[in-house]
Amino acid sequence: MEEASRTRASFSRRVLNGLLLCSGDMEHLDKYMKDKSFVLQLAVCGLRGVTRVILANNPLSGGLILAALYWASPWQGLLGTLGVLASTLTAVITGQDSVEVAGGHHGFNGMLVSLLMGVYSSAGDWYWWLLLPVFLGSATCVFLFSGLSSFLDRWDLPAAVFPFNIIIILYLLCTGPEHPYFPHHSVKPPGALESNATELIALQVIRGIPLGVGQIFACGDLGPSLLILGAVFLYSPLLAVHALLGSAVGTLTGLSTAVRHESLYSGLSGFNGALGCMAVGGFFIFSLWTHLFAIASAFFSAYADIALSNLMGTVGLPACSWAATLVATLMLLLTGSLAAYRIPIGQVRAPERNLQLRSQWEAGNTEERESADEHKGS
Amino acid sequence: MEEASRTRASFSRRVLNGLLLCSGDMEHLDKYMKDKSFVLQLAVCGLRGVTRVILANNPLSGGLILAALYWASPWQGLLGTLGVLASTLTAVITGQDSVEVAGGHHGFNGMLVSLLMGVYSSAGDWYWWLLLPVFLGSATCVFLFSGLSSFLDRWDLPAAVFPFNIIIILYLLCTGPEHPYFPHHSVKPPGALESNATELIALQVIRGIPLGVGQIFACGDLGPSLLILGAVFLYSPLLAVHALLGSAVGTLTGLSTAVRHESLYSGLSGFNGALGCMAVGGFFIFSLWTHLFAIASAFFSAYADIALSNLMGTVGLPACSWAATLVATLMLLLTGSLAAYRIPIGQVRAPERNLQLRSQWEAGNTEERESADEHKGS
Amino acid sequence: MEEASRTRASFSRRVLNGLLLCSGDMEHLDKYMKDKSFVLQLAVCGLRGVTRVILANNPLSGGLILAALYWASPWQGLLGTLGVLASTLTAVITGQDSVEVAGGHHGFNGMLVSLLMGVYSSAGDWYWWLLLPVFLGSATCVFLFSGLSSFLDRWDLPAAVFPFNIIIILYLLCTGPEHPYFPHHSVKPPGALESNATELIALQVIRGIPLGVGQIFACGDLGPSLLILGAVFLYSPLLAVHALLGSAVGTLTGLSTAVRHESLYSGLSGFNGALGCMAVGGFFIFSLWTHLFAIASAFFSAYADIALSNLMGTVGLPACSWAATLVATLMLLLTGSLAAYRIPIGQVRAPERNLQLRSQWEAGNTEERESADEHKGS
Repeated sequence: MEEASRTRASFSRRVLNGLLLCSGDMEHLDKYMKDKSFVLQLAVCGLRGVTRVILANNPLSGGLILAALYWASPWQGLLGTLGVLASTLTAVITGQDSVEVAGGHHGFNGMLVSLLMGVYSSAGDWYWWLLLPVFLGSATCVFLFSGLSSFLDRWDLPAAVFPFNIIIILYLLCTGPEHPYFPHHSVKPPGALESNATELIALQVIRGIPLGVGQIFACGDLGPSLLILGAVFLYSPLLAVHALLGSAVGTLTGLSTAVRHESLYSGLSGFNGALGCMAVGGFFIFSLWTHLFAIASAFFSAYADIALSNLMGTVGLPACSWAATLVATLMLLLTGSLAAYRIPIGQVRAPERNLQLRSQWEAGNTEERESADEHKGS
Repeated sequence: MEEASRTRASFSRRVLNGLLLCSGDMEHLDKYMKDKSFVLQLAVCGLRGVTRVILANNPLSGGLILAALYWASPWQGLLGTLGVLASTLTAVITGQDSVEVAGGHHGFNGMLVSLLMGVYSSAGDWYWWLLLPVFLGSATCVFLFSGLSSFLDRWDLPAAVFPFNIIIILYLLCTGPEHPYFPHHSVKPPGALESNATELIALQVIRGIPLGVGQIFACGDLGPSLLILGAVFLYSPLLAVHALLGSAVGTLTGLSTAVRHESLYSGLSGFNGALGCMAVGGFFIFSLWTHLFAIASAFFSAYADIALSNLMGTVGLPACSWAATLVATLMLLLTGSLAAYRIPIGQVRAPERNLQLRSQWEAGNTEERESADEHKGS
Repeated sequence: MEEASRTRASFSRRVLNGLLLCSGDMEHLDKYMKDKSFVLQLAVCGLRGVTRVILANNPLSGGLILAALYWASPWQGLLGTLGVLASTLTAVITGQDSVEVAGGHHGFNGMLVSLLMGVYSSAGDWYWWLLLPVFLGSATCVFLFSGLSSFLDRWDLPAAVFPFNIIIILYLLCTGPEHPYFPHHSVKPPGALESNATELIALQVIRGIPLGVGQIFACGDLGPSLLILGAVFLYSPLLAVHALLGSAVGTLTGLSTAVRHESLYSGLSGFNGALGCMAVGGFFIFSLWTHLFAIASAFFSAYADIALSNLMGTVGLPACSWAATLVATLMLLLTGSLAAYRIPIGQVRAPERNLQLRSQWEAGNTEERESADEHKGS
């Protein structure tokens, strides 16, 4: 009996260790991958790229997210896969920094562009001509990412999803609802008045909160959205909490400005809040103070998203994640008490790891100081 | 007889000295305030913030302006007061630089946001729910001010009223003319054709010039506008001249592009010119050369304002002070003969004081050179 | 016989030498011009300014382009001449850097503004009141050029034609189709649906390719467009090839997104591609690799132009050369393999000369290394 329980304990410890190895940034994988074939390396950096969208960096999370997308719609899953591969390969060909490429920095914008092209297309699934703009758009993201990084580098700011936001808007502007080759849905602004207003269903609104996390990948089904949330949880539980909290804040914001019910139910009013919240949660050391700023950032992102959606909706365009990207950039520029918690862009890891590294570093500092004091004393 | 006249002379000298003490930046007040209570300090830095809108920095001018606003409309006065307090307190809580807070740098954007929210609201005065967006908007200004300052600091540029312009546009976009909670007036572009065009009344146009100074604070009454002009005069007579001149240039610009009469009469076509003129008058050492540039800046601001108003009017938005803020930023970036007169942002005082400091500094330089020559001679 | 052929050969050699002296940047002219009268110097730097639009710098090319404009329409030629003179003189008066002024850097934006004001005016030719906005607009370009240069200098980026693009949009926004003093044509977006769609005529489309080069100067006639192409060829044959290639790419892009036939026939869908292609051809050392990037840049510029034209067409505005200017700026910021070929902005010459200087420099380096090796050996 005792032996059995001991075996079970050791087994569960091994499972936990395995899980811990699979969570976080999985830096140990990089050493292991060094002498592997190009295709395998490409797959891993593609999967890392998939998670970069949600500020994560973990190939297993990437696999889960991709599975969620294939689950929601095989066509969307295919588009996403092609997008991340096209832009990563373009980055390799145009000679981008190999560490950046391996970290998946050149994949996520291409992936988002492809997914959104698929979602907005009104030509239906499996419309193979769509692959042309998908390839071109994903490849162009690399140019924008590289150019914008040079520009924003002066302030140690990331190019983030600016390339995606620019390319998808340009694509939608080039084509149109009645375009002969690439027709797409026109977007209705969230502030548009509803002709037959119905009662708001509370349960649907609450359902919109996890959907808000899925909408980051343009996914509007509950199951896959929960799987995506699980993928974030695998990378970092703290980040998953921020995502849910941000989405809830976004929904609250939508309620306070009386947006269309459809916008609340689908999670579209939540995903900018989620991104804004995760950005502060991810780029700053976790503390009570940063947590309050993360909530403020979620509110600001969500309100700005409603404003931009109404503005861009006048010409039939979506606001994508412009709001969250701009607000996150602003938060990174902030001076004052938040700036003390900021992590330099190159050193960002999973929130838990950031916390650990900071406390180690602080402990190290204290020890050093103590030993210095001792030396003085002696 | 002689004694009486002497007493009168000494009395008027004392009055003059008292006035001189009350004009300019009143730096002597800072030393006096150091050991006073927090509430009193907050009041002074709030009043300084009120005057920052018109590039001044004088608590007494701030008091006069606030009185003018209460005179024009008690509700507007209350909103302005709450806005300046809300953003200054947010700056204190988020740990912004205390010298900046004390100088009122974090108050003026919040104040403008609150005033404009009140002016555009179509829910009428004393609609208490409006305090919610007023507080939120004013607080958010601090984030934008801090982030934009970090960004623009590379070129020694001020964040100026960019935060106000961004927040008010986002607010108006979030809500709308038919919004259930926060309805607001739709804005008619100045270039809109008038159905029943009447003769232009010259006196009304001239009346629009001082109103242009009042419109900086969204105040459209003649009496309060003149009081605001008086407040500028108290801080610096030179700046007041620039304000009036710029407003006149703006009105002239409006006439040359045949804007709606309403726009000329209300002073709305003048206030961007006034701001553009004051910016060059305030941030550069006064001289004939800078004065010409100030007039050019007023013309450019006013034309840009008409253009932007027409553009933003297509979606029912006002152009606020975007034009003047952008042109002023451009003038500060200028190379060539104007750049020689530029004062570093941190050292800007009242125009008269700037002139005095410059001539002292030059005199000092000459003396040094002379004494150096003497030394050489001996 | 033999002597005659020898004379002929020497004659043709002399002609060739003369042509070579007239091509490229003609730096030898600067020494010759130093002690000439102000009017002659102004003429030369004005003509240099005319060619700066197409990234060239050669007064003879400038003369040819001006001749082409007078050929197409004497009124447009006059406007162009006045524009380049007005902005160059403003630059002299406002004390801009004299080397920049002499290089024609302050002329090309003013020229483009004047030409476009003339093209969009619906008041007909020889409407003398138009000279007022032409002078004002051209003069303001100097302010924008100087300010933007200070701003973009941090990344070694040129202000390029940003000032022109900003001023012309502001001008068109200030006035309008029904404006009493300065009425202008409303612009139809290229993506607008055609009511009576006809067959596409292949010959007309091909004719649109050289017209695309002429459209850089808002010139829509074949003869003058070919003369402008000849002027580019005189400066640098390589650049002329880039121009034609870029225009062809732009036309292809227009076909792929099914723009209006009118847009293809007139060359309007080609000129942004031409500019985008020339920018990479001009600012980077020529090689197979940069050539591929130039084609990519042409594609990106042309697609972005269609997108922006559709966006700005909703408020009746043209997209001018915003697309090419933004894409060219992006290409200059690019990291990776293209960055190795970049020439610092101050050292850009004609593409052929850049190539020669680079190979000389490399040969010099090799020689130095070799002599260093010899020294070591001895």
